Amino acid sequence: MSKKRGSQTYVIDSDICIKNTYTIVGPEEAQGSFKDYYDYLLEDDLWECKSYEKAEIKLHKEVIDGVLKKEYLTHNNIDCIFGGDLLNQIISSSFSAREFEVPFLGLYGACSTFGESLAVASMIMDGDNMQRTVCATSSHFGTAERQYRFPLELGTQPTPTSQWTITGAGAVLLEKNSGNFPKIKSVTIGKVVDYGIIDAANMGAAMAPAAYDTISTHLKDMNRTPDYYDLIITGDLGKYGLDLLKHFAEVDGLVTDNIFDDCGARVYTSKQNCGQGGSGAGCSAIVYSAYLHKELLAGKLHKILLVPTGALLSRLSTMQGESIPSIAHAIDIEI
Amino acid sequence: MSKKRGSQTYVIDSDICIKNTYTIVGPEEAQGSFKDYYDYLLEDDLWECKSYEKAEIKLHKEVIDGVLKKEYLTHNNIDCIFGGDLLNQIISSSFSAREFEVPFLGLYGACSTFGESLAVASMIMDGDNMQRTVCATSSHFGTAERQYRFPLELGTQPTPTSQWTITGAGAVLLEKNSGNFPKIKSVTIGKVVDYGIIDAANMGAAMAPAAYDTISTHLKDMNRTPDYYDLIITGDLGKYGLDLLKHFAEVDGLVTDNIFDDCGARVYTSKQNCGQGGSGAGCSAIVYSAYLHKELLAGKLHKILLVPTGALLSRLSTMQGESIPSIAHAIDIEI
Repeated sequence: MSKKRGSQTYVIDSDICIKNTYTIVGPEEAQGSFKDYYDYLLEDDLWECKSYEKAEIKLHKEVIDGVLKKEYLTHNNIDCIFGGDLLNQIISSSFSAREFEVPFLGLYGACSTFGESLAVASMIMDGDNMQRTVCATSSHFGTAERQYRFPLELGTQPTPTSQWTITGAGAVLLEKNSGNFPKIKSVTIGKVVDYGIIDAANMGAAMAPAAYDTISTHLKDMNRTPDYYDLIITGDLGKYGLDLLKHFAEVDGLVTDNIFDDCGARVYTSKQNCGQGGSGAGCSAIVYSAYLHKELLAGKLHKILLVPTGALLSRLSTMQGESIPSIAHAIDIEI
Repeated sequence: MSKKRGSQTYVIDSDICIKNTYTIVGPEEAQGSFKDYYDYLLEDDLWECKSYEKAEIKLHKEVIDGVLKKEYLTHNNIDCIFGGDLLNQIISSSFSAREFEVPFLGLYGACSTFGESLAVASMIMDGDNMQRTVCATSSHFGTAERQYRFPLELGTQPTPTSQWTITGAGAVLLEKNSGNFPKIKSVTIGKVVDYGIIDAANMGAAMAPAAYDTISTHLKDMNRTPDYYDLIITGDLGKYGLDLLKHFAEVDGLVTDNIFDDCGARVYTSKQNCGQGGSGAGCSAIVYSAYLHKELLAGKLHKILLVPTGALLSRLSTMQGESIPSIAHAIDIEI
C-alpha cells in the first residue's frame, strides 16, 4: 500500500521520533538570536585544529558524539549515520564517520542536506529497515568562504545580497516508538528548480523558487493551507530570499503572516553584521536542533514544516557560466 | 518488525525489481571487455560539449532519459531519481536532475555511490514509500583527472598502482512487483574504514579493507559462505586491490576462486593501457547495467553480490596530509 500523497509527498506511518539533539556553534553564532539554546559554544572557530577543514570535521564528529552521550548510547546502538556538508567530497561527514564503527550513508543536497537526511532516514525507518539513526550536518564559515568564494585572508567585501555561512553543526537522534517527542509525520522530496540566477552571492534569490515549489507542492499534496502549521520555516533563504518566498506565496493567495520564516534570517541578531543572514548545511540543523526542537518540546510550537534549502552550484559550474539550480525538501514535524 | 540481520544488513522483503538499465560509455570503454553490452558508445568524450564537465552532465542526463525511453515511461511515472558522481558538489547529478520534473535525492559515497543509491532506493521502496525510481551514477576521465590529479594537458605519467577513471554513466530502473527480473534481496550498509593509506594513486589498497569489511559482515549477517553467490564483484578495486581483497578473504579461510572479481579489473582488456583497471562512480554502474544485468537475465548468473567501493578523499584532504577513508556497500541481487 503506497504511502504517497499527491506527486512528491510521503506520509510516515510509523512513529519516528526526534528523540534528542545536539549542537555546537562558532563565536559569531554564539552571539546570535539562539545563543541560549546551543549545547556548546566555541570561542575560537579553529577549535585547536590546524585548519578550518579539520575544525569542521571535529565539529561534525563531536555533535554525533554529543547526541549519543545525551542519551547514554554507544556506537553499537545506532543503525546508521546519515549526513553531509558543503565541502568537496563531503569530507567533514566522511572523515568524522571513520571515528565511529557505524554504517554511514553520505548525502549531498548543499544546504538542504539536513532536510534530505531527515527525509531519507525517516522513509527507511518507516520500512522497518532501521530503528535508531543519527542525522548530522555541518558547515564552517572559514571552509565555505575559501572553497566557494575567496580565502578570508583576502578581506573581500561582501555584496549586499550575500549571506554568512554558519560555523556550526547539528545532530538529531531518530528513534522509533519512543513516546512523546516531536515526530516526522510526512516528507516532501524536492525537485531541482532553476530560475536562471547566476550571481553566486545571491543564494536567496536562487533558492526561493525551489523552496516555494516544495512548500506549495507539500500543501497541495496534503490538502492543507499554511495555517495548518504554526510555522513554515525554510533553511537559509536569508531576509531577501524570505521576502521573495512570501511574495510567491502571496501571489498564489496564501497567507504568510506569522507563519513563514527562515532559519538563516533568524539565526543572527540585527546588530550582527552578517548580510542577509545565515546559510550553510549547518544552518537549519542548528536552528532546528537548538531552538525549534525545544520550542516543540515546550509546547510553544505544535506543528512545523521545516524546509531546508540548497543551492546546487559548484565553483566550477559558476566559472563555466552556469546558473544555480536549487532544491528544497519539506519535513512535517509535529508533537 | 525489524528487517535487520546481524549488525549492518537489511533483508528487502518487498519485490524490488531492477527492471531495465541503460549505459553510455566513452571511447576507451567502447574498446573494452564489455563493448558489445553497452547501449551507446561515444566516439568523442567531449560529446559536442564545451567542457568535460558539461559532457559528464550530458552523460548523466542521457542515461536517465535512456532507461525511461526503453520502458516507454515519462518523468511523471517516476517517484524519485537517486544519484551521485565524483565532481565537487555532485554537479553532474544535480545539473542533470534539473532537466527532469522529478524529485531528486543526491548521494555521495565516491565510487560506491551506485551501491549506495541501490541500497537507499530499495530500503525506501521496501517501506512502500516509493514504487518506481531511477538510480544513476557517472564519472568522466577528463573531469576526474583534473579535479583529483592533474589536467590532461600536463601529460602526467601514471604510477604503477593508478587506475583509469571510467568515462561513462549507468542508470537502472527499479520497480516493485514487476515479475521475473533481477531483484534486490538484501543490502549491507558499509562503515567507513581507514587503514592509513595516503597514496591517492593507490585507491585499490585504500578501498580493499573497506570492501572486505562489508563483504565479511554481509556473509556473517546472512549466515552465508561466498559460494552462496555465483559472483562477488567489487566496484573498482582494480587488479592490485582485488588481489588484496582475496588475500584478506583467504587469510580468514574463505574460498575466493571463481567467485571474487572486480568491475574495474574486468572493464578493460589486457591490451588497453589502463593501469590497474577502471575506477570512478560510473564503473560499477556501467558493468552492472551493461554486463551483469544481462547475464542475470540470460540465466548465466543467478545470485551476485555487487559491492561498489569508494575512496572518500578530496584533493584538499590529501593536501592536508590525511589518509584515505573508504567505504563499500553490498547489494545482493538475485533472479
